[in-house]
Amino acid sequence: MSELRKDPIIGRWVIISTERGKRPIDFAMDIERKKGGFCPFCPGNEDKTPAEIFALRDKNTRPNTPGWSLRVVPNKFPALKIEGKIDRQGVGVYDMMSGIGAHEVIIESTNHDDTLSTLSIGRFMEVLYAYKERMLDLKKDMRFRYALVFKNQGAAAGASLEHSHSQLIALPIVPKRVTEELKGAKEYYNYKERCIYCDIVRQEIRDQVRVISENSMFLALAPFAPKFPFETWILPKEHHSSFEHTSSDSNELLAKIFSEVLNKLDKVLNYSPYNFILHTSPFKENNNEYYHWHFEIMPKLTRIAGFEWGSGFYINPTPPEESAKFLRETTI
Amino acid sequence: MSELRKDPIIGRWVIISTERGKRPIDFAMDIERKKGGFCPFCPGNEDKTPAEIFALRDKNTRPNTPGWSLRVVPNKFPALKIEGKIDRQGVGVYDMMSGIGAHEVIIESTNHDDTLSTLSIGRFMEVLYAYKERMLDLKKDMRFRYALVFKNQGAAAGASLEHSHSQLIALPIVPKRVTEELKGAKEYYNYKERCIYCDIVRQEIRDQVRVISENSMFLALAPFAPKFPFETWILPKEHHSSFEHTSSDSNELLAKIFSEVLNKLDKVLNYSPYNFILHTSPFKENNNEYYHWHFEIMPKLTRIAGFEWGSGFYINPTPPEESAKFLRETTI
Repeated sequence: MSELRKDPIIGRWVIISTERGKRPIDFAMDIERKKGGFCPFCPGNEDKTPAEIFALRDKNTRPNTPGWSLRVVPNKFPALKIEGKIDRQGVGVYDMMSGIGAHEVIIESTNHDDTLSTLSIGRFMEVLYAYKERMLDLKKDMRFRYALVFKNQGAAAGASLEHSHSQLIALPIVPKRVTEELKGAKEYYNYKERCIYCDIVRQEIRDQVRVISENSMFLALAPFAPKFPFETWILPKEHHSSFEHTSSDSNELLAKIFSEVLNKLDKVLNYSPYNFILHTSPFKENNNEYYHWHFEIMPKLTRIAGFEWGSGFYINPTPPEESAKFLRETTI
Repeated sequence: MSELRKDPIIGRWVIISTERGKRPIDFAMDIERKKGGFCPFCPGNEDKTPAEIFALRDKNTRPNTPGWSLRVVPNKFPALKIEGKIDRQGVGVYDMMSGIGAHEVIIESTNHDDTLSTLSIGRFMEVLYAYKERMLDLKKDMRFRYALVFKNQGAAAGASLEHSHSQLIALPIVPKRVTEELKGAKEYYNYKERCIYCDIVRQEIRDQVRVISENSMFLALAPFAPKFPFETWILPKEHHSSFEHTSSDSNELLAKIFSEVLNKLDKVLNYSPYNFILHTSPFKENNNEYYHWHFEIMPKLTRIAGFEWGSGFYINPTPPEESAKFLRETTI
């Protein structure tokens, strides 16, 4: 059983896998990641994953057989377990709770060699649709307060399987990074009665120095204070607090700008590994005036070292005005 | 000139090197780090580093010549520049300031093949002494509010030169990670009138499940909610808020436990790369009842991926009770 443990000083939670505790020797083995070989996400191997939760598939095909174009399955080695109830307890000065949550894998394509960047716009829309459907479904489970969608592209970005997939983890607590953003956004809203992200969108469209791409509904930009070189955010131009409640009419334009950005990053950074995350409002605050959902794409180009761990600062050798210019001017 | 830029939502600062902006091609070159070859930190090459700020050297030897056992020099490629004044300005919704700070390198040994673990206790004491002396000196510069000592051991942990060294960055702001710890510690103190770290020390000594080693003045432990496998903290058993004002009488016992822990980690984790950081009170709060200085040692065994970036949570596959047991029982 996993445990959620809280750092008693700063209140950050960590997930401790007490079940498959890694011994020192296990870490060395992690370094060798299999290339080629058997892939549990390829069509025909549906019985090698846990049973599917959701799929987009041809009519008249049965679950867990070929005929799908996208599948969502539970993670075979979940960070948190879906069964059980939330059990909070103190251990002296410390706090912990049982490691309950959902950990799902979104298999984005049948083709082992696809990446999100190579998908057609129609297929990319399916991925976005799947994110929404899974979030709406998990929201019904009253034990959960947040669902985080994220993707690790490439082994250096933490992907343990080559076949293109995203992940979703539903949590019994709102994670620290989201809480920090909510707090900042609320403070700004209380002071100005405007959403800070809406103000950023307006300023960036006016300045046009950190804009990478835009269409009638979405903006892709290099943030003013990026942690990483070539960090890119995608956000709706209008105020929308919850991704999963944003009208599906916008999926096509989101897929277009998202695909464009990933293809530009692939070209400029020579297929650099990357992570992306979706930040949206917590389940219980899904319709509000202060928070604004967005994707953050973080290419894996630099190392996090002692200074970053100790300070929470980041040293970024590429000004966002330069990375935006590179990406804006790159044709795909 | 570097810039300090503030994330407008969560208030985290980043350092943007506008001067040597990295183009995409530059990142690929970073991957090949030189092994062997010329070392600017070896004796005889003193003129290849900026002029020394501090050194422990034989009597009758001149600065920037051989005869030293430890040297402190400015970083040749500093993240922040020492010259100039703090200039704060707004850019629409954003905030920035000039990138003023000190970035120093502590060269820990004359021997290119040493690591901190291979130093004698006497030489390790010199390193701790140098940290203190540099912090006390930088504290006189009224532009600075904090000095962060850290070490990157091994290329995978971010070290760009093999020759064993630590670094120190003095900053015009108290970094976010430290602010978070101060805030948590102050809240606890306001509520209980006790230092939270002192309470942790007492509980850990009583429980003896996460203790790695202890002597009359210091405790080495695996924290209850570690971000990383085999994360280890070293802290004084008595309340001390500032490292640089802790009596030098304690240096020998600190060097002993620190060296012991690093040697145990080397043995158990087969010389894994690691980072360590020193957290102490900000310059202006150097004598207080709520904060407690400590070192955090973080072996580099796992990858930070999308979930961690998006949530601020960490998934740790090794319970601290197990890592502490491994380290406690390992003989060196």
